[in-house]
This record gives sequence, structure tokens and C-alpha cells, in this order.
Amino acid sequence: MNRSIRYAALSFAGVVLMAATIEDPPLRGYTAESSKAQREWEGKFRAIPEPSRIRESLRILSARPNHLGSPYQKENATRVRDWFRSYGWQAEIEEYSVLFPTPKERVLEMVAPTKFVARIDEPVLKEDATSGQKTEQLPTYNSYSGDGDVTAPLVYVNYGTPADYDELDKRGISVRGAIVIARYGGSWRGIKPKVAYEHGAVGCLIYSDPKDDGYLQGDVYPVGPWRPKDGVQRGSVMDMPVYPGDPLTPGVGATADAKRLDIKDAVTIMKIPVMPISYADAQPMLAAITGVVAPEAWRGGLPITYRIGPGAARVHLKLAFNWKQTPLYDVIAKLPGSTWPDEWVMRGNHMDGWVNGAADPLSGLVAELEEARAMGELYKQGWRPKRTIVYMAWDGEEHGLIGSTEWAEHHGDELQKKAVMYLNTDGNGRGFLNAEGSHYLENLVNAVARDVTDPETGGSVWKRWQAAVISRGDAKAKGEARGGRADLRIAALGSGSDYTPFIQHLGIPTLNLGFGGEGGGGVYHSIYDSFNWYTKFADTTFTYGRALAQTVGTLIMRTANAEVLPYQFDQLVETARGYSAELKALRDGEAAKIAETNRQLDEGVIAATMDPWNPLQPPKREALVPNIDFSKVDNALDSLARASQRYERAQMTAIAANLASIALGQVNGLLKTADQEMLLADGLPKRPWFKHSLYAPGLYTGYGVKTMPGAREAMDNHDWAMASTQLTRIAGALDKEAALLHKAANVLEKKNVVP
Amino acid sequence: MNRSIRYAALSFAGVVLMAATIEDPPLRGYTAESSKAQREWEGKFRAIPEPSRIRESLRILSARPNHLGSPYQKENATRVRDWFRSYGWQAEIEEYSVLFPTPKERVLEMVAPTKFVARIDEPVLKEDATSGQKTEQLPTYNSYSGDGDVTAPLVYVNYGTPADYDELDKRGISVRGAIVIARYGGSWRGIKPKVAYEHGAVGCLIYSDPKDDGYLQGDVYPVGPWRPKDGVQRGSVMDMPVYPGDPLTPGVGATADAKRLDIKDAVTIMKIPVMPISYADAQPMLAAITGVVAPEAWRGGLPITYRIGPGAARVHLKLAFNWKQTPLYDVIAKLPGSTWPDEWVMRGNHMDGWVNGAADPLSGLVAELEEARAMGELYKQGWRPKRTIVYMAWDGEEHGLIGSTEWAEHHGDELQKKAVMYLNTDGNGRGFLNAEGSHYLENLVNAVARDVTDPETGGSVWKRWQAAVISRGDAKAKGEARGGRADLRIAALGSGSDYTPFIQHLGIPTLNLGFGGEGGGGVYHSIYDSFNWYTKFADTTFTYGRALAQTVGTLIMRTANAEVLPYQFDQLVETARGYSAELKALRDGEAAKIAETNRQLDEGVIAATMDPWNPLQPPKREALVPNIDFSKVDNALDSLARASQRYERAQMTAIAANLASIALGQVNGLLKTADQEMLLADGLPKRPWFKHSLYAPGLYTGYGVKTMPGAREAMDNHDWAMASTQLTRIAGALDKEAALLHKAANVLEKKNVVP
Repeated sequence: MNRSIRYAALSFAGVVLMAATIEDPPLRGYTAESSKAQREWEGKFRAIPEPSRIRESLRILSARPNHLGSPYQKENATRVRDWFRSYGWQAEIEEYSVLFPTPKERVLEMVAPTKFVARIDEPVLKEDATSGQKTEQLPTYNSYSGDGDVTAPLVYVNYGTPADYDELDKRGISVRGAIVIARYGGSWRGIKPKVAYEHGAVGCLIYSDPKDDGYLQGDVYPVGPWRPKDGVQRGSVMDMPVYPGDPLTPGVGATADAKRLDIKDAVTIMKIPVMPISYADAQPMLAAITGVVAPEAWRGGLPITYRIGPGAARVHLKLAFNWKQTPLYDVIAKLPGSTWPDEWVMRGNHMDGWVNGAADPLSGLVAELEEARAMGELYKQGWRPKRTIVYMAWDGEEHGLIGSTEWAEHHGDELQKKAVMYLNTDGNGRGFLNAEGSHYLENLVNAVARDVTDPETGGSVWKRWQAAVISRGDAKAKGEARGGRADLRIAALGSGSDYTPFIQHLGIPTLNLGFGGEGGGGVYHSIYDSFNWYTKFADTTFTYGRALAQTVGTLIMRTANAEVLPYQFDQLVETARGYSAELKALRDGEAAKIAETNRQLDEGVIAATMDPWNPLQPPKREALVPNIDFSKVDNALDSLARASQRYERAQMTAIAANLASIALGQVNGLLKTADQEMLLADGLPKRPWFKHSLYAPGLYTGYGVKTMPGAREAMDNHDWAMASTQLTRIAGALDKEAALLHKAANVLEKKNVVP
Repeated sequence: MNRSIRYAALSFAGVVLMAATIEDPPLRGYTAESSKAQREWEGKFRAIPEPSRIRESLRILSARPNHLGSPYQKENATRVRDWFRSYGWQAEIEEYSVLFPTPKERVLEMVAPTKFVARIDEPVLKEDATSGQKTEQLPTYNSYSGDGDVTAPLVYVNYGTPADYDELDKRGISVRGAIVIARYGGSWRGIKPKVAYEHGAVGCLIYSDPKDDGYLQGDVYPVGPWRPKDGVQRGSVMDMPVYPGDPLTPGVGATADAKRLDIKDAVTIMKIPVMPISYADAQPMLAAITGVVAPEAWRGGLPITYRIGPGAARVHLKLAFNWKQTPLYDVIAKLPGSTWPDEWVMRGNHMDGWVNGAADPLSGLVAELEEARAMGELYKQGWRPKRTIVYMAWDGEEHGLIGSTEWAEHHGDELQKKAVMYLNTDGNGRGFLNAEGSHYLENLVNAVARDVTDPETGGSVWKRWQAAVISRGDAKAKGEARGGRADLRIAALGSGSDYTPFIQHLGIPTLNLGFGGEGGGGVYHSIYDSFNWYTKFADTTFTYGRALAQTVGTLIMRTANAEVLPYQFDQLVETARGYSAELKALRDGEAAKIAETNRQLDEGVIAATMDPWNPLQPPKREALVPNIDFSKVDNALDSLARASQRYERAQMTAIAANLASIALGQVNGLLKTADQEMLLADGLPKRPWFKHSLYAPGLYTGYGVKTMPGAREAMDNHDWAMASTQLTRIAGALDKEAALLHKAANVLEKKNVVP
């Protein structure tokens, strides 16, 4: 639905509007005049992408296994570079050399109470032509697992999160010297072996339970989209929440001549052997475990009694890897800016799959390529981006965001000077727009989503997004979505894709977008993530591929040509206030919990409710939680709110005056450092690579975001003194942000006002 | 722990108490002097019950199948009668003649897409001697199923509750002409075929899913306590929420000469054939269903994709029953009262099992017998109950509370004149005391629970009960249990055991008690509910059998000899206020839900969030919910509160004055009608047999209670006018209760005060 139709509908709804006088308000960051021109180009842009071309690109790129180091990935890099060039872009391949382990030996067998040799191999399906490309496929493994040869009792640890180990502790069960078996889910996979190792385990198996990812969800492939019994989710277990990228070159680009760590000093490589397996392989081993029955929430969909162990089941796991330096190929394509060539609007999607990677990542990359083709078409028609548009196709994402991290580290200084945005996608599907990123970009995402048509409903992408929030949100979210708030909220960035080095290491304004939420399936990181699967069960018409290209391309073009960068800081302030409130609630909740536990210990409640047939360990008495000083953060937020309001007024006034004699380069130069100002010079505790004061992946969640992470994780660990220290540092970062906005307002107001 | 030790412990905790001056306060309803004597007899009583005797009784009574109509049940009735007589009680068998269907023909087979003949038989286990008594066992069936011979597509309906049919409606799926398959759980079993029939189904299968009741819970029998793959939960599907007991004699005792309905006019007999099956029999049929995948909450523990259908699976179900008049034997034993022989303190547990019935019901009956033996011992030592104690062992409970209902109907007038309490148990296990019943008995239950020692912790039964509330309750419950409220709350009575005719039809003060919550198992209503199972996996030491005998016996003795019946009405008032608040919240919640649904329909939210690949039916627009007049109920509650406070003061004053010249017979005569005053003359809408204004089993929950049922069920049905009418009737009942308490206060105050 375009805007004029929307207004017509409004007038039917009882609001009398004179159609002739209705003008779209100018786009943020544009004058009335430049806005009109921009809208015309955007409209032309959105008419260009074609589903059939997106489909054909996907077919070609997913035709053979295309993992890091594979021959076809090298071919694809060349192909993608050449496609960019054919669209009229400058494009180059940048090569790095990274440590990439591939299996030399994989043995998994149960040795007691009975012998069982695991299959650890995904069968070829006649219905799926590419599933038979055995010689080129990576076998089932977890990259950056440790080498090892261990035989030990098996212990089932549910998802293997820290909370699951609390349940083990309650039952007096240790995993010391054991091999744990965890199911996928509940956290990012790399957390499972890390926590297991920290608890003394000597090995780790990770399997896909059919309740979460198999027959209980629906028909399995090839009949339906879900994971078949021998399907395996491969995946990296590199300790990315410490730092992503090449384990040997933290903080610097993995160029040929980079200084490298010894492998033994690379802390992001797991210390114990880790192996992903299918539920067909897991079942006999899980069934053989004896000991106490797993709690209800731990039980999956296999027809067995889930028990914790350790007990009768003993497993032999032997893994050895080729630890080789491997060439990595990133494609970097540019459409040079006409006015501000040294301001870069960037956008990327990775190019490497775990095997053929049709859904992950190529369904996103093919939209990116279609955007590039469409912009090339516009360029021929005379359109010029004011800023340089930089499109990337990353290699090595699957193994630790390697291609993006090495490139970002390599070009860090330049990026911190030039980048005004990094927009990421990573695959695509049918459904609803998901958006997460820097919160001063929230308004921009909302504005663009209002201008793109949803393929399934014919309404705008924004309208469908709003409907989802109203339908699924709590009372507060419903009220906001219904107009209590101008824009729909975007989420904060954790990790799990290539945006991480940009937002969390360099402080580049960042977004991550994609469509999804309809359909589903279980071929993630298996040989069945194929063109056949995608065209049968995912975005089969590629209309969501087109919608993604339209959404992202519009957003890139609007950012590229804005006179003042279209950032809106009030939404950042409001969101950060929410984080502060959450931390207060977290402190209060933990305080109440600990007080309650101690009280129950005093009262003898825990002893009195114990079943002597199933005795549990009483919880530990903990020190009561002190009150914490939130005033510095709250003062900083108050001050940032004032700065943001002042900037907002200044910006509006300047735009209304047609930006006459404003030093735009200076304003935009300040604005683009909006995330950099919020970086912490020394980074987060125990992981200095992660520098953002507001957003980080959790050290024990892996992908899941922790906002105000320094303070929040200290609270998670009940380190209240550290939480206080971190709150002070966060306040400092927010104070810098406020100062930045005053500076930008000064330029816009052509004066020098002390905040 | 006895009371003096408890006080000693208190003094250690810092409260300095002079041990010599500590006296237990008098028991409620007793003077200081009579209280002391009572405590001594209670102490002697609790020393008598012996676990080994309880065990031996269980062994004998469960030695052969003992269902209604079986030879061994007749033997047991004689045996139990004779045991009572040997303890010094008067005991008789009362015989009724009731309609009891047993299977003539049972056929269950899948006829498409493949042929599968269900086993419908539980295998003999060599580990369990009584499992092999095939010739005496009832086969697997649901009593009061309809006769029928149907072949139809199979539809999976989850638990088969009304809410589950809402989910079917959303998907546009009808069960008209189909056979439904529901899993056990979520409601009482009889609801499943009733709702299925109301939706047009022609047959109903009910199976035990291994997630709820099978291998996912733990080791299956005989290795562990849980339901094996071929185990079947038999059970009655008589429409008991309309009226329980013999379907042919509603409201009157099923004596030989009673007037009987024609079978075709008996509305409590199901109209369609219903059959309980094992998960081994269910699996191939469920797996063959095609059509949409069941929602996540519907998926059980079988290794299949749960689908709803209708689709490929077609089933043939043929059931024919012998509809025979069957003799039923209740045992009624009495220990005559010395002072008020026409006031009866009653206590019962059923005697019939579905097969051998070791846990259900005999583990409760053997405690009752041990109480009777202990009271007989005391009688020999000179103890005399002031009121007549009446102990019952019921027949035919399993098929519809038949023995208790027919006896209660038969003796209804006498009971309404004489009964001061009916206390029910129905089996027993390890763990925590569960209590439910008339809320003016809450204080009495709490007082007794403080005087009985818990076998596993050595503390009092009350202390462990309190610990459970603190450990599992919400903040309000925790605060109350910690002393914010003098007593722990007891639950309201729904249905599912023999208390129903007493409380809900006759208005007798009623309690239902039992220990449980530890261990668990899945042999309910199967041939494996045996002495072998019980002595391996349940209360193996029979110390909870003893604790039940001690608790119940103390409670019976204390009631039998109280000078003023030990009722405390403030707790009734407070509880009823809670029900009124719940109804307001229910109305407000439904109002908000309907308004929200209508709003989302207006906004197009529902259309905009629909996945076109999995379309759902939009919800129906409903009329907005009117506000409802709660003032009559609230006024009645206010007035009852005043009456209760006045009664409480009058009672304390009279006791303090040693009950000098109080007409106790008159006071007690009033008090014992406390529930009768709250009966509704015409009963509940559509089910006049159920007369209590505060408590009833839900018409669509079966066992689960609905409090203030007339109003609550009207609200459940969105019949707001009916809800108003019912609130007025409830207010009337509460007004009568208030008038009763004023009358009792008048007698105690020896004056005649107008309220």
C-alpha cells in the first residue's frame, strides 16, 4: 500500500483530509526538495528487483559445497565479484589467511553397557541432488573443538547452560571426568562445551532433540522441512563471546604477514573434544544412561526415559583435526559517493555456507546482489549516491565471523573514520521484518518499513510488523504499537552474525535485518540446507527475497543521500533508560531471591520438603545483596536526554531553514561516531575486544544479547562491587554521547553552547 | 515432635518461656477441663496403629480383583464388616441394586491406511502375582460408555477439553462423524466423550500418553513405578457432574423397590462408544493420522509427529455391554455416642477397586480399619465418644460414587438431621497432607495436623505442610503460611470421590484428606495397582498409612467429643470473599479479552499476522461484556462476616464461662446445618442434584472444583444475565448462613438478638 492510498483510507475512517494539500512530510535528514527527489529514486529502485533472478542466483551459488577453504567458495567469490562488476560497481577480493581446523579423525562409540558405533554421517537423499556431493562436503563436526581421545561416563546436561548445572548441583551430580551430552537450544552451542569444561568435563556431545528440531515439529526432510533422524547441526564452538575471528590474530587483520599467536595460546579454541550428532546417534546413548530421572523440563522427544547419569553408559570420543592456515576470500564492492566519498554506507551478508548453504547464508546474499544490480540500473539512469556505498560478501562467517572480523580489524581505523552505517543480513524467509541494531536508527528502519509492500498481505511491511507486536506483545507493547509510541521497537544486537565486529568492536552504527517467522524447518548447518529444500519449503516464490532487497536497498539509498544523517537519539535514550530499569529490577530480584533462600534455610523449609527417596542438596547460603548506586547512570541518562532533545530541535530548525550554510560535513562527521563515543576504552571485563557499553553477546549466552553488559553480567555473577564499577563506566560512556550531541547541535545552531 | 518439645525448641530460638507455666490452650469447642481429658485420649489413640497390621490388611483385601459385582468384593464386604465387629463396633452390610455395565464385545482396529488390530489387553507380569488373575479381572473399558459400532476417520483432540475444541475451530477442523482420540489428563476422563459427542463425534478413544504417564516420567512397571506400554487406565465415563450414583435412580436410594428410569432416559450414560487404550495401541493409530501438525502444547512423548486429522486414519470401534442390575454392598459400622447418639461423626473410604485396587482405594481403607481397631481398644479402656461415630466402606465408587451416593440418597433425611461431619479418604501415599472441604473446618484440620508426627521428617504433619506452602506458594501464600494467617488454607471440594453426595447434595460438613506428593507412578486403574506395586514403590513402610490413621482418627475423636462443634466461620467468610474477588477478576478478564479480540478484528491484526500457508479461522466477534452487580454478594458477605464475628465471641465467652447452662444440643443442632443453609433449593442450572451454592465439580472439568459454581459457570459460558441471577441466589444462601450464626450466638448468649 503506498502512502496516498493510506491517506485515502484514513479519510474513509472519518478523518476529513483535503487530498490536494497532503504532502508526504520530508524524509528525516532531507529538505523538502531533496526528499521529493529521493522518494522518486527509491520508488524506481523498488520496481527493479525480480524474484526469478534472485532464484537463479541462489541456484548457482548453492550448487556445490561452499564452505571456507572449499574450491567452490573460491569460485563463488570470483563470481560474486564479477557480478558486482557487471552491475557497474568497483569490486575486489580481499584475501586473508586464517586458522581453520577440519577433521582428520572422528570416532564416537558407546563402549558400555553395550557397544554402539555412532553413524556420524548424513545419508544422501535421492530427492536432493546436492546431498550426494560427498567428496566436497565438510563432515559433521564442531569447528574449533579441541583434539582429544577420551573414554568416560556419559552425563546428560539438558541444554548445558549454567542454570542446568545448578540443577545438577542440587542433585549432587558432578560432570568431572565425564563426557556430557547436551541438546541444541537454550543457548548458543559454543556455551555448552565451555561450561562443561569449566565444570571438569573431558568431552562434549551436542545433539538435535526431535522435540526441538525433528519429528515432533512436523514431517522430516525430504517429506517435510524438519530435521531427519540422521541430520546433524554442524557449527563452530569457537569462544566468540571472548573474541570472534581468527583465533591467532585477535584485534588485527589476518593478513599474510600478521603477527600470530601460538595455537596453544589461542583462548577461543575449546579445550575439550566436542562433537555434534543426530538424534538417531544420540538415542541409544541417552537410553543407556542410568541414575536419576531428568527433571520434566529436560525431557525431549525421544521414546526413552531421560536420565542424568553418570551411570552405566560409557562413551569413547576421539577427535583429531588438521589445524591449517586457510585462505579466506571477502568480496568488497563499492559504488563511489558523489558528494562525500569518504563517508561509507556499508552492507554485507556472508557467502560461505557450512555445506551448500542455500538458506544460510545465500538466501540473504542473493537479495544483496539484486539490490546491487538495481542500484547499478539506477546509476545508468543518472542516480548518484552522495556517500560511497560499500557492499560486502563475507567468507568464513560460519566458523567465527572470520571474514568480517578480519576485514574490520584490518581496516578498523579507516572504518572508524568513514563508516556511517553497517547493515547486515544473514539469510531470509517468509513472514515478518525483524530488525535489531543501534537504537538511534530505529526511526529510520520504521520509516523504510512503511514504504515497502509485504508480499503476503499487500499491506506495508511496517503494518504487518505492527500487527505482530499487537498480536503477540504484552499490554505495554500493544499500547505502544497502537500509537502510544511513534515507532516500533528494534531489538539490541547480541551476536551470531557479521555485524559483531562493526558494532561491538569498532562502534559503527549498525543494523541487522531479515524476514522470517513463518514456516520453519530443521536443515540448519546440514547437507540438506539446499536449493531443493529452500525452493520446496522456504520462500518458494522469492517474493520475500524481493521484499528484503527492497527494504535494505531503500534503507541504504536513504542513508547514502541524506543531508544530515537520519539518526534519532530520543529513542536511544528511552531504550537505555529501560536497560537501567531492568538492572534495578535484576538487583532487586536477586536480592529477594537470596533473602528468600536464606530464610527458607533458617526455617528448615528445605529439609522439611525433601523427599528422602530423592534427596536434593540444600542451596548454598549467600551474602545478602547490597543496594547499588544507580545515580551516575541515571544522571548521565538525564543529561543525554537533554542533549538529544536539543540536537533534535536544532536539526529540525536547520532543516526547516533548508540547511542554509550549515557545515554538513562537520555535523555528519560527528554523528557517525555516535556508537564510538559509547565504547569503553578497555572493553568489557575479561574480554577487552568487546568495547560497547550498551550491547554485547553474553559471555554465557553466546548469541543472546546482554545490554549494559559490564554491569549486567557482574550482577548475573552476584559481583555487586563490580556491578557498581561498571555502572560508573557506563555513565561515563553516556556522558560522552551527550557531549557529542551538544557538539552536533552547536554546529547546526552555528554557535558554541556549553551543555 | 510433640507440643512440649516444640515449645522447648522455641525457647532455644530466643523466646524465654517458663516451661512450668506453659499449658496447651484448650481445644476449640472444649472447656479447659474437657480439653485436657480429650488430649490424653487422643495421645493414647495415636500410639495404637501399627504399620504391620495395615500392611497385612492391604495384602488380604487386595489379594483378588474386588470390583463392584465381583465375588471377592462380596467377600471383602463380609470380611470388613466382621473386622469392625471384632473391634467392638456395630456393623452391617447395606445392599443396593444398581445398573452396572460390563463388556460383552470389544473391537478396536484401524482399517485405513493400514490394518492394525489393537491389543486392548494388559499382559501378565511374572513379577506381579495378582496380574495373572485374568478370569476375575474386568477387561479394559470405560464404564457407562454407550454401545456402538462405528467406523470413522480419527481426529486427535489433545485432552479433549472445550479449550481444545477452540483450537480445532481456529483451524476449521470439525469432529462431526469422526472418532476422536484424546489423551488422559487436562480434565476428568468423562468430559472427553461428553464434549466429543456435543461436537458431533461418533466415538471416543482415550489413551495414556507416555509424556504424562509412561516412560518419560521414569522406569515403567515392573522395573519402576510408571505405566508400561500396554497398561491401560480404565475408568467410568458416567456424566457425574450432572448427578453421580446409579443412573436409573437419581435422587433416591437404589433399593430393590426403588422407582427406576428406563436406561434410554438416563442422561448420565454416554451416548457414544468410549474406549481407554494403552500407548502401545495408540501409537500406530496416531502415527497414521494425516493433516495439520498439532500445536506444540498438544504433542506428547511418542516418537511421532502428532497431527490432528481427519485424514488417512480410519478406525473401527465396536462396543457392546451387558447392562445388568448388580448387587452393591456398603459396610456401615457404628460406635454409639454416649451423650448425643443422634449426632453422627462419619468417615468413609471406598472398598471396591477397578481391579485389585491396592493403592486405589485400599491403602486408604486399611488406615480407616486401623483407626476403628484403635478406637475399639480405647473403648475397652473406658473411652466413650459423646457422638455416634459412623465408619463406612463403600462399594461401587469406581463406577460413579455409587455406593456412597445411593446410601446418602437413601438416608438423606436422617443424615441432614444427624450428621455433623463426613470425612473421606481415598487411598494414601508418602508426602504431604492434602486437605479440602468445608472451610469452617479449616481450623480443625490445622489443629489436628499440628498434633501428628510426620514419619519422614520427625516434625509435625502441619510443619511439613507449612513448608510445602512456603516452598511452592506465591508471595501471598508464603506470607500467610509464615504467620500472616493463623492456619494453612484447605482447598474447596470438586468431585472424584465419595464426599460428593454428602457435601454437594445433602450439605453435610465435609472433609477429604490424604497424604501424597512424593514418589508417583502409573498403575492407576490397571491390573498393576497391586500389593506388589504398592509395597515396592509407594508407602512401603506403611508409616504414612499409620500417619493417616493418626490424623483422621484424632480428627474424628475430637469432633465426636467436642462440647461445641469445633467450627470456625471467619475462615469460611474470608475464603468466600476470595471467590467473589475471583469472579470479579474473571468478568474483567473476559471483558478485556473480548474487547481486545474485537479490536484486533477491527484493526485487521488477525488477517495481517496470518501465515497463508497455514491459514487459521479468525475468531468470532462477541458482544462486549456488561458490568455485573456484585453488591448483593458483597453485602451478604459483609453480613456473614458480622454474624461470624458475633458467633466467635459468643462461643469464646461461653467456653470461658465453662459452658454453664448453655443448651449445647441446640447450638450443635444449629451448627451442623452450616452447609445445609448454603444449599440452593433448586440446585445448579441444568443439574438440580448439585445444590451447594459454593462448591461443585465443573460441568466441563468433572473433578476440578468450580466455586460459586452457578455464577462462575455462567461466566465461563459468557452468559452474563445468568451470572447476575446466580449471584443473587448465592447472596441469598450466604444470608441464610448469617442468620444461622446469629441464631447460634443467641443460644450461646442466652438472649434473642435481631441481627
